[in-house]
Amino acid sequence: MSLYWSDLVASLTPYVPGEQPRLPDLVKLNTNENPYPPSPRVLEAIRQEIGGGLRLYPDPEAARLKNAIARYYRVLPGQVFVGNGSDEVLGHAFQGLLKHDRPLLFPDISYSFYPVYCGLYGITQRTLALNDRFEIDVDDYLNAPDCGAVIFPNPNAPTGCLLPLAEIERLLAGKPDVAVVVDEAYIDFAGQESMSAIALVDRHPNLLVVQTLSKSRSLAGLRVGFAVGHASLIEALERIKNSFNSYPLDRLAIAGAVAAMEDHAYFESTRAAVIHSRERLVRDLSDLGFAVLPSAANFIFARHPDHDAGELASALRARSIIVRHFRQARIAQFLRISIGNDAQCAALTTALREIVGDPRNESP
Amino acid sequence: MSLYWSDLVASLTPYVPGEQPRLPDLVKLNTNENPYPPSPRVLEAIRQEIGGGLRLYPDPEAARLKNAIARYYRVLPGQVFVGNGSDEVLGHAFQGLLKHDRPLLFPDISYSFYPVYCGLYGITQRTLALNDRFEIDVDDYLNAPDCGAVIFPNPNAPTGCLLPLAEIERLLAGKPDVAVVVDEAYIDFAGQESMSAIALVDRHPNLLVVQTLSKSRSLAGLRVGFAVGHASLIEALERIKNSFNSYPLDRLAIAGAVAAMEDHAYFESTRAAVIHSRERLVRDLSDLGFAVLPSAANFIFARHPDHDAGELASALRARSIIVRHFRQARIAQFLRISIGNDAQCAALTTALREIVGDPRNESP
Repeated sequence: MSLYWSDLVASLTPYVPGEQPRLPDLVKLNTNENPYPPSPRVLEAIRQEIGGGLRLYPDPEAARLKNAIARYYRVLPGQVFVGNGSDEVLGHAFQGLLKHDRPLLFPDISYSFYPVYCGLYGITQRTLALNDRFEIDVDDYLNAPDCGAVIFPNPNAPTGCLLPLAEIERLLAGKPDVAVVVDEAYIDFAGQESMSAIALVDRHPNLLVVQTLSKSRSLAGLRVGFAVGHASLIEALERIKNSFNSYPLDRLAIAGAVAAMEDHAYFESTRAAVIHSRERLVRDLSDLGFAVLPSAANFIFARHPDHDAGELASALRARSIIVRHFRQARIAQFLRISIGNDAQCAALTTALREIVGDPRNESP
Repeated sequence: MSLYWSDLVASLTPYVPGEQPRLPDLVKLNTNENPYPPSPRVLEAIRQEIGGGLRLYPDPEAARLKNAIARYYRVLPGQVFVGNGSDEVLGHAFQGLLKHDRPLLFPDISYSFYPVYCGLYGITQRTLALNDRFEIDVDDYLNAPDCGAVIFPNPNAPTGCLLPLAEIERLLAGKPDVAVVVDEAYIDFAGQESMSAIALVDRHPNLLVVQTLSKSRSLAGLRVGFAVGHASLIEALERIKNSFNSYPLDRLAIAGAVAAMEDHAYFESTRAAVIHSRERLVRDLSDLGFAVLPSAANFIFARHPDHDAGELASALRARSIIVRHFRQARIAQFLRISIGNDAQCAALTTALREIVGDPRNESP
């Protein structure tokens, strides 16, 4: 606290990201990074951008990148907004589209940055409980008496559960007067067919879909996120952005992100590998007695009936494996485990087998 | 305007950056970029960072960069904040340190983003007029009856005029109860000796100094800015940042910025070249009859007694030379001209000689 702080500063409860330790031989399964490197075409595109041109400002509109995203999703460039990671895009959406007199609704269990944004921008929030299967029930939102806007991750984080497109469309149609933001950081891992709600933006002017290149494009280190929606929603984000920072994306990030959106083959092969590893990990952990929520993401959310989640996380850490554990009501007995490469998944399974024992080896 | 916009969005008047045209053979003297490329060490450091590691999040604290800046300025790392360009750093400072019940004071002629931030964060502003020589008069601020905080660029933009450190210290000492932000985007061009107010931060807990690597480090395309001040001011910025975007600086930007802060020799030689070119351009334009304000920046602010500034800008544009012209009270007859390399400065001088004529060639 300081004499010089604005009133806001003292009131904030900042977000705490997963730790980023730099230990050798660490099996890092705590921040949902992709186990595979970015596409070689991305690395080459960045290399090509390194030179004297870095003395010049980037294109403030990042038009090349908007065009690449528009081509990929068959929308117009004016339906695309880009930002410095999807967190920046979400921040602008909270300030520009989710702040109203009536409360913003989101699930009680979801991305823990949402209440932080509400604090930053003075947004009234109300959380609606996931059902007993940890799913979003659209009827809860349709029946909410007081609703200024809605946001939820899909698949949800940290549960990994997917809300089907038909349910999202039912929400959009039932609440045409409020903005609905679908935060699709993990949607590319839902399956080989696109499950993105971007397919709905042309029919629903109240829908904004937010995505990131951090996960399925293996570019957490480059900081690029985007949003797709009706041009008037995009204009709101542009007005905020141009009142905050004219050039949020640097030249290297623009070049790399364009290449990432264009290398379809690499994207398809790495996401297939992650999905394949996830399915095997789910089987392996189920065999060890874990209950695993159905995951459409590059992580799983799992609990063991006989072992405390915090103790499991500590035991894994002692074996140089880090996973994420949230000390929060309803989910304190779960671990969120990122899908690693095959060696990392095997190391995790081996470690958990040592810690919890293999029920198939126990005498009846 | 849209049903889905927050009330704020419609009220905004976004900042309009200088245009970034991509025309061949353009002499681009409108956005104060450095005419020299970044240090070769910077380019090599970025190249080294390109690889599979980009799949991993960057260090959210960017500790390497904070350490490099702290070493350069002989302060503690806890006195350093870094962000995605100085515009992002300024945005957080407006929200965290410059918003109070009493108004924020800044010069009537200064960085035109300041009133935009005030609009974005609902900050009450009051502008104080520069004196007739376009200088900041510290007494105006000391005598202001109602002052919640102060911000000004030094050297000022778009005038280029420098406020001496002794005057800044008089302001800091006379207003110990309010935060003072000195926006030093151009300070490195004030002279070979550092004129930065960072020298004052240990004596004045109310001082925050903001700088950028865009200008003197030739890295406008990389988006890195920073602030130095008392640890409690830095904490305010960190609390805002961690409520908005955990990872504003990507891995490549961190790597390049560290190298830029460490390559003292390249930095000294390019800033000396810019200062040298500026001094010659001031002489050449003075010979053509221009009145040029004393500049401590990598641009000059000049007017011609017999030629309308808007018409001069158009005539230059017709010759593929672009400079910046602000249609604003008191300065509508000035041009802001970035210092280019020697060939660009010569092209500008030649073009202006054609347009305004050389008074030395006229008959008495």
